Amino acid sequence: MIEQMLGPTVKVPIRRLRQGVTQDVEDVVATEEPLEIRVVWWEEGTQRTASVAVTMRTPRHDYELAAGFLHSEGIIRGFDAIERISHCQDEGVEQKYNIVNVYLKPGFAFDPKLLNRNFYATSSCGVCGKASLEALEIRGCPALPTGELKVSKDVVSSLPDALRKEQRVFDRTGGLHAAGLFDAQGRLQCLREDVGRHNAVDKLVGWAMLGKRLPLNNSVLVVSGRTSYEIMQKALSAGIPFVVAVGAPSSLAVDMARRFGMTLVGFARGDGFNVYTGLERLDS
Amino acid sequence: MIEQMLGPTVKVPIRRLRQGVTQDVEDVVATEEPLEIRVVWWEEGTQRTASVAVTMRTPRHDYELAAGFLHSEGIIRGFDAIERISHCQDEGVEQKYNIVNVYLKPGFAFDPKLLNRNFYATSSCGVCGKASLEALEIRGCPALPTGELKVSKDVVSSLPDALRKEQRVFDRTGGLHAAGLFDAQGRLQCLREDVGRHNAVDKLVGWAMLGKRLPLNNSVLVVSGRTSYEIMQKALSAGIPFVVAVGAPSSLAVDMARRFGMTLVGFARGDGFNVYTGLERLDS
Repeated sequence: MIEQMLGPTVKVPIRRLRQGVTQDVEDVVATEEPLEIRVVWWEEGTQRTASVAVTMRTPRHDYELAAGFLHSEGIIRGFDAIERISHCQDEGVEQKYNIVNVYLKPGFAFDPKLLNRNFYATSSCGVCGKASLEALEIRGCPALPTGELKVSKDVVSSLPDALRKEQRVFDRTGGLHAAGLFDAQGRLQCLREDVGRHNAVDKLVGWAMLGKRLPLNNSVLVVSGRTSYEIMQKALSAGIPFVVAVGAPSSLAVDMARRFGMTLVGFARGDGFNVYTGLERLDS
Repeated sequence: MIEQMLGPTVKVPIRRLRQGVTQDVEDVVATEEPLEIRVVWWEEGTQRTASVAVTMRTPRHDYELAAGFLHSEGIIRGFDAIERISHCQDEGVEQKYNIVNVYLKPGFAFDPKLLNRNFYATSSCGVCGKASLEALEIRGCPALPTGELKVSKDVVSSLPDALRKEQRVFDRTGGLHAAGLFDAQGRLQCLREDVGRHNAVDKLVGWAMLGKRLPLNNSVLVVSGRTSYEIMQKALSAGIPFVVAVGAPSSLAVDMARRFGMTLVGFARGDGFNVYTGLERLDS
């Protein structure tokens, strides 16, 4: 049996009713398939495997997604921990392309029980935005350095169009999130698309990690949608001090940017933008 | 200590740079806070508590969100199972308003080990879209009845604007997902907003469950964004046969609609829409 990885888009027959005209045509939609991310590590001479997450994603760049996800979650701290990454190769498993194994080098431990514990600062306290931010500090996420990265107003204004121009899959489907890494001069370093906006960012972070580019202290993250706790947490983990969103931020995204010394821009369009925190990185 | 629940929006100071003008103003952002959902049940005469999920949400309608989430996940099948719902009232817990306890009636069992098992059809098979859909069948989600609900083209065309008109929090923040339930004549039954698009749908489902309105076989679900596996799964669990989205569907949303006999409309705008599946519910 030859099994093929699904592409990022799928064709489907539809009926289109638009401006009084009815047509039966073919439409292109973004592929959504589950990806299971597994960690494989050595414990007292035995190889162990744990399933860490299942995320609904658009296929392609799966290794980056797995690596970036594990980094964002604090499970893998850097490139050094990774022996290799591969799609599942077990006998008799269908859909091997929807499972990615991340093999840790001997000496790098993994404790499955620690999963999902990051979120709580203490088990006696209720969960709240403040506790969520404290949990990131406890995990060792420091406030980001100021002074290194400066970005001009003109560059910030140019970023949404620069991102949009490169969204190849969006062009075909009209429905996909994008995240891009840019340098201070507004040059695109990497762009990824996904049905999940958090996946698009994880793919970027994984791209950087696998290319030994972390931390991304001189990069700007641009996202096609809104910013939330989750997006900012992934940026922080990767050391990205400057986040530009086409959409609105949530309250917790703003709190987090403030607490960790990040610059957060929202509603970035061709004609301007809002700066929520971190004005010091904006060059006039 | 008097503790207040956060409202759906928060004011933050920002610098706005737009069309060459710089202003320091106050902006309104959508509140994002974690909500922990707990199930409390009786087992051999002992009251037990399990934390089922933490979701980042916009406060308000928390009971609906908790009830709807548990229904969508197949943990609670209907109103009958619920004794009561309350925010956490434990002594010494801060942020009680970010924890919701759902108390099951005696006789309604809950097995925490079953959490997260729904996703896999079998453990030996890889995960794939097909397996995801089969898992829903195994859980007892039947294909939805045809013939009952018919919606005219004009009503479908009117739904995006009808939804948009009632998005009160979006008006203030420019950044919030909305989901609305409409009847076949396009009359709004309920609308909910949230930073998480899946939460907005869960709130609607919870509203319906707590009002003993399930299954929603005669309702149309309208969402402000895109449709994915997750959105369609929540609609299916609630018996909603007709889903209209302002944005694009994913491949798995289309597969799911086809398999479970649902009508799926995408790119609904004032001037028309695309029908991906379920043409038989569209009245010309």
